[in-house]
Amino acid sequence: MSNDPLVVFTPSGKRGRFPTGTPVLTAARQLGVDLDSVCGGRGICSKCQITPSYGDFAKHGVSVADDALSEWNKVEQRYKDKRGLIDGRRLGCQAKIEKDVVIDVPPESQVHKQVVRKRAEARDITLNPSVRLVYVEVEEPDMHKPTGDLERLCEALDKQWQIKDVNCDLHVIQTLQPVLRKGGWNVTVALHQGDANQPPRIMHIWPGYYDGTIYGLAVDLGSTTIAAHLCDLKSGEVVASSGIMNPQIRFGEDLMSRVSYSMMNKGGDKEMTRAVQEGMNALFAQISAEAEIDPSLIMDAVFVCNPVMHHLFIGIDPFELGQAPFALATSNALTLKAHDLNLDLHPAARVYLLPCIAGHVGADAAAVALSEAPDKSDDLVLVVDVGTNAEILLGNKDRVLACSSPTGPAFEGAQISSGQRAAPGAIERVEINPETKEPRFRVIGSEIWSDQPGFGESIATTGISGICGSGIIEVIAEMRLAGLLDASGLIGSAAQTGSARCVPEGRTHAYLLWDGTAEGGPRITVTNPDIRAIQMAKAALYSGARLLMDKIGVETVDRVVLAGAFGAHISAKHAMVLGMIPDCPLDKVTSAGNAAGTGARIALLNIDARREIEATVRQIEKIETAVEPRFQEHFVNASAIPNATEPYPILKTVVRLPDVSFNAGGGDADTSGGRRRRRRG
Amino acid sequence: MSNDPLVVFTPSGKRGRFPTGTPVLTAARQLGVDLDSVCGGRGICSKCQITPSYGDFAKHGVSVADDALSEWNKVEQRYKDKRGLIDGRRLGCQAKIEKDVVIDVPPESQVHKQVVRKRAEARDITLNPSVRLVYVEVEEPDMHKPTGDLERLCEALDKQWQIKDVNCDLHVIQTLQPVLRKGGWNVTVALHQGDANQPPRIMHIWPGYYDGTIYGLAVDLGSTTIAAHLCDLKSGEVVASSGIMNPQIRFGEDLMSRVSYSMMNKGGDKEMTRAVQEGMNALFAQISAEAEIDPSLIMDAVFVCNPVMHHLFIGIDPFELGQAPFALATSNALTLKAHDLNLDLHPAARVYLLPCIAGHVGADAAAVALSEAPDKSDDLVLVVDVGTNAEILLGNKDRVLACSSPTGPAFEGAQISSGQRAAPGAIERVEINPETKEPRFRVIGSEIWSDQPGFGESIATTGISGICGSGIIEVIAEMRLAGLLDASGLIGSAAQTGSARCVPEGRTHAYLLWDGTAEGGPRITVTNPDIRAIQMAKAALYSGARLLMDKIGVETVDRVVLAGAFGAHISAKHAMVLGMIPDCPLDKVTSAGNAAGTGARIALLNIDARREIEATVRQIEKIETAVEPRFQEHFVNASAIPNATEPYPILKTVVRLPDVSFNAGGGDADTSGGRRRRRRG
Repeated sequence: MSNDPLVVFTPSGKRGRFPTGTPVLTAARQLGVDLDSVCGGRGICSKCQITPSYGDFAKHGVSVADDALSEWNKVEQRYKDKRGLIDGRRLGCQAKIEKDVVIDVPPESQVHKQVVRKRAEARDITLNPSVRLVYVEVEEPDMHKPTGDLERLCEALDKQWQIKDVNCDLHVIQTLQPVLRKGGWNVTVALHQGDANQPPRIMHIWPGYYDGTIYGLAVDLGSTTIAAHLCDLKSGEVVASSGIMNPQIRFGEDLMSRVSYSMMNKGGDKEMTRAVQEGMNALFAQISAEAEIDPSLIMDAVFVCNPVMHHLFIGIDPFELGQAPFALATSNALTLKAHDLNLDLHPAARVYLLPCIAGHVGADAAAVALSEAPDKSDDLVLVVDVGTNAEILLGNKDRVLACSSPTGPAFEGAQISSGQRAAPGAIERVEINPETKEPRFRVIGSEIWSDQPGFGESIATTGISGICGSGIIEVIAEMRLAGLLDASGLIGSAAQTGSARCVPEGRTHAYLLWDGTAEGGPRITVTNPDIRAIQMAKAALYSGARLLMDKIGVETVDRVVLAGAFGAHISAKHAMVLGMIPDCPLDKVTSAGNAAGTGARIALLNIDARREIEATVRQIEKIETAVEPRFQEHFVNASAIPNATEPYPILKTVVRLPDVSFNAGGGDADTSGGRRRRRRG
Repeated sequence: MSNDPLVVFTPSGKRGRFPTGTPVLTAARQLGVDLDSVCGGRGICSKCQITPSYGDFAKHGVSVADDALSEWNKVEQRYKDKRGLIDGRRLGCQAKIEKDVVIDVPPESQVHKQVVRKRAEARDITLNPSVRLVYVEVEEPDMHKPTGDLERLCEALDKQWQIKDVNCDLHVIQTLQPVLRKGGWNVTVALHQGDANQPPRIMHIWPGYYDGTIYGLAVDLGSTTIAAHLCDLKSGEVVASSGIMNPQIRFGEDLMSRVSYSMMNKGGDKEMTRAVQEGMNALFAQISAEAEIDPSLIMDAVFVCNPVMHHLFIGIDPFELGQAPFALATSNALTLKAHDLNLDLHPAARVYLLPCIAGHVGADAAAVALSEAPDKSDDLVLVVDVGTNAEILLGNKDRVLACSSPTGPAFEGAQISSGQRAAPGAIERVEINPETKEPRFRVIGSEIWSDQPGFGESIATTGISGICGSGIIEVIAEMRLAGLLDASGLIGSAAQTGSARCVPEGRTHAYLLWDGTAEGGPRITVTNPDIRAIQMAKAALYSGARLLMDKIGVETVDRVVLAGAFGAHISAKHAMVLGMIPDCPLDKVTSAGNAAGTGARIALLNIDARREIEATVRQIEKIETAVEPRFQEHFVNASAIPNATEPYPILKTVVRLPDVSFNAGGGDADTSGGRRRRRRG
């Protein structure tokens, strides 16, 4: 056994013996310990800070003397004086091993730091972005060895960092010479780690040691809104978030109207491409201003979006996505130059688009899969991302299925008589007293319920303007729970329900939620057509989920994750009363918030996650609802609103539904069907 | 031994046994016989034409029956009716092997055709361009298997051509869908074979089978002129050649004045970059018009140029090339997108720049090395490319050295009292009668000597305007041979020489070559300062060559190759009389014409040649004349014009020099030195 000192690194537990005088950084590298360094051990960057521990470490079999490391040196003192160093910390490149020692690598000194996610059930993100910074000392030119400056820079990357076969963007070659000379032949290089099939690539060089950071964008490109997170690629932190309306809205509210626009107008696709790219630039300028950074420091960007947005964003006419067989121009993940998409970021910035799962299940669904990882779940999880289309994933470690279901815009408040987008003034929460049948509600922008003191003042600026998607779901579910609505979705008359709020409207009835006409405001009712629209939407969502359950051969799922902004606001109880989602214990229904945006952020911060989701998407089984006869069957059967007289083992423990049924006018309410009548797949 | 029929291919001699019914193309592929096919055996492209031979082939051990191949079929008949097929030819994909057979693959059916070069000593070029065309049948989209169109195209390339891991340019992705549908899911793909480190890349797709060709450019970017050859990448033929003046001339005649322009004028380098890129586009438009092709069919371009032109062309400030240590920004070969250099070619066209050898020895010298291949020569060859700088290569199979020598513009007619560029009206050939000392000459634009009948009429339109580079060399050498000039370069007086054409001029004399003043034309003389300028230039050239000879340790070379337009026009005899090049039997001095341009064409037509010259350049030993004391020493000693009284073993057999010496005025002519006084290196 060697007499060399033993070094034990924590938290990794990696250990080895090294000759006296070996720098801690060198030992860490040889053992594969995750200890950061940008300057390569020159005492400049301070990324390699470590904390030696002294005393007896029985569990490591080491007793550490006070002089286990070399003495505190000038470089460390200079660094401490200039920038500060926590007491007890040493620079790994300066401190040399003298005797047995235990060395802790604090989280901020790890290259592959963990970026902690807030949700308890979510995995943390391991930091490993596509762009890294390295500091190199380049050999000066010599007439006797006339290689180019670039070749000597590449040689330095190879010798000092073992980074080989590096390519270089033209704009870097164009400005290389003055930068090298300004830095006295020392430069910091921003290096793209390389995509599948591609060698690493020099994106930027700074003279000397670049002390700043570089940034990346995680962008969720929706049909209605575009939201971006600006992330520090060195810490993984979100430094600013911002959003704008998708400027394509002027060409059509929903996806299909935009596809139509491009079909009807020659060059319409190019107009829309230009619009969204310009919108992106406005958003990036806004978020950069907010974070007070130069947009040219943004070197990477990850985009998630549905297939139509995907194609329009990168300049493909979405024509084929408007008709069967809904063929994507390309389904694999793409790495493009931001410049080729006319984005005003760093000139060498790259753009990564997650793979599309199918013609109707886009990179946004892939991002949800990356964030929620059904493929890593032990129990069977149903993930639904509700928007104009619902993307549905069902699976576990063994198998994941995906489909898309055309829910239409009702869940977003469109096609609803008093519907509106989720914005200040919109009713978002509703409760109806089952005895009095009287409602109370809350409005976006106020925390006070409508029957509480101070409500009037709290909505003084916003007023009450309509009902948003989550509000309409709650009010319909509450109407059903209060016995105002039968299983077929028919609203009872005042006589039938005993509530004066049930007012005649055409051949059916409506429920009066709020009458603001006295103050010049709107009269907000829930009409029977509103309920029909929601029934269609929820039936589509439910049928998609059921179809996947059929394919797997199950009657229930273990848990449900609601993704998307909508999923974040609807109440699980009301969604289940309505029959939007399959039965599941209420405490097993969680909201993932903007899971697509989170997926984008994961892919931005960790390139291994890109390879991972690319592999996952190849494995996901794609189900096309349009050609599945069972989807139509489920759809027809799923329009009813669950009836408590039918067996309802799980939900029954949560809420009790009164057994009501109304037959109004000539409308034959179909209570014989309903979503209970499932067949096994 | 198998009973399967034996197939022998000529000219390769490859042979094998194949089951009855095997298509000839399949057999050829399995044997690795070089038989072309674009359509992959579908009877569309007719590239796989072969000629079966019948009868006894003792040397192959085969007797071929008339029915050795399957019967002429409909596909072949249809092809013959439509496009014609030489009698006796069959389509290799249609004709099936029935019995023993000998099959000839005609040159035009070979993928790697030989492109024959005119010069006897030059190697032929093997055709293997960077871009190839392949025809594929793509699977139609299917809702049950929702991969993108691009992914199915890549799958087809893999399955049908074994081409894997293909990348695709964004502009192709953007237009892929309509092209695939227009072609009924059959398309022809232009595929970039991939550079070092890079996967193959789809550059273009055509619907169906594309019957046309694609083009490439070989461009010699000189300080004064830009010359381009447009080549058919399928046949290797030059279909058009054209040239323009380098528009950078307005910023300075020679390289150093352009470097100065960029030093003195902020943004001057960018102005010059724009000028040369715009000039390129004008040239490309001109050459495309001449060949009557669409410039967007030009998919590849190879550029050769000196380092300053190289840097200015790709947008690098040449500042560093204007001062020691003459550091190149990059010396390796570059593959760039034509689009990034603002060139109006195919949107995915690539640009290849040969590697630079050193700060003063550019990609043009590398191209000369590729064309003249000193590294493959058995005997010791000296290659000189004469321009404002002379690039000099010396070597053989064992070792190649390179240097650059600052000859200045005298060889191009500049700094000469009656000098001019090689253009109509310039005196290019001169003879002086040693008895009468009277001259006769020829002028560019006329084949008639000045003392022959009809000379006057033949130059009626051009007149006689001056002397070009080759003319000045000839006249000075002839003056020396006629005893009008001593070894130091001094012109004798009329009294000394016995010629009235030796007229006083300042403190020395001049030789009157032509007096056109009577007709209002110029009076053309050769003055002593003219001779001094040529002496300086030739001394620089000679000293560079000698320096390399010293390094190798030789006193003579086996042969000399004169490259460049200048090298094509000067007479070897006169060059040697002047002492421009080292001694060598006159029949071992050849002209390579525009060897740099030829090197560009080789690199364009054969990507293996690119790898080859990249490796060669890494091996070439670079000698920097500016820091070699022996260069100065040689230079001082090399200004004399060889004197026949000194030993001159080789040249003496060719021409005899009279022993004359003039001491005129105060000018001490140095006849004690001269180029004989070499030391061994």
